[in-house]
Amino acid sequence: MTNYSAALDRVFHALADPTRRAIVQRLCRGPASVGELAKPLSMALPTILQHLQVLESSRLIRSEKIGRVRTCHLEPIAFSTIEHWIGRQRMVWEQRLDRLEAYVKSLPDKGGKHGK
Amino acid sequence: MTNYSAALDRVFHALADPTRRAIVQRLCRGPASVGELAKPLSMALPTILQHLQVLESSRLIRSEKIGRVRTCHLEPIAFSTIEHWIGRQRMVWEQRLDRLEAYVKSLPDKGGKHGK
Repeated sequence: MTNYSAALDRVFHALADPTRRAIVQRLCRGPASVGELAKPLSMALPTILQHLQVLESSRLIRSEKIGRVRTCHLEPIAFSTIEHWIGRQRMVWEQRLDRLEAYVKSLPDKGGKHGK
Repeated sequence: MTNYSAALDRVFHALADPTRRAIVQRLCRGPASVGELAKPLSMALPTILQHLQVLESSRLIRSEKIGRVRTCHLEPIAFSTIEHWIGRQRMVWEQRLDRLEAYVKSLPDKGGKHGK
C-alpha cells in the first residue's frame, strides 16, 4: 500500500508540470531521442534532463542509450496507476449518489414527483 | 488552452500528496467538516488547512461555513479534467499501436505467422 501510495505521489507529481506533460504527449506518438524532445522546448538541456529524470523516476517513461544517443519511450502502464485510483474514488462517490437517489425515491411525496 | 493547462497543473499537484488524497477519499463518501477531516490525520490544524486550501484552489473540493462550522464537499468534475487529458494521450498511443500492428500484419512473412 505504501508502494502504491508512493507511486501515485510520483506519477501525479510528474504530470503536474506542463513541460513534462508535453514530453509525455510527444512520446505517445512514438519513441524519441533527447535531442528530438528538446527541439520544440525552449529550455536549457540540463533542465530538460531534470524533467526526464522526474518522468523516469515516476516510471512514465524509460530511456536507453545506444552509442551516443539516448532514446526515451513511454511506459503507459503508469497511467493505469492513477486511472485505477481515480476509478476507485469515482465508484465510491457514485455509490453514494445512487444511495441518495434511492432514498429520495423512497420518500412518499418527493418520490412521486421525482418519478414523473 | 493556458487555463486548461493551469487546471491540469493544479489538479495533478493537489493529488500528488497522500494527505490530500486521503481527504478526497473521505469526501467521496460525503461532505465533512474540517474537524471530521482532521480527526484521522495526525497533523496540526494549520497544516490540514493548508492542504484544504490546495484542494480548493484545484477545485477538487469546495467548502462553506455555516455558523462556526466549515463543511467541505467534493467537486468530482475536477477528476474529469485529468481523465480527459489521460484519455487523449491513451488514444494517441493506442492509434500508434494499431498502426504498428497493421504494419506488422501487412508484412508477407511475419503477417502470416502473426495471424496464426
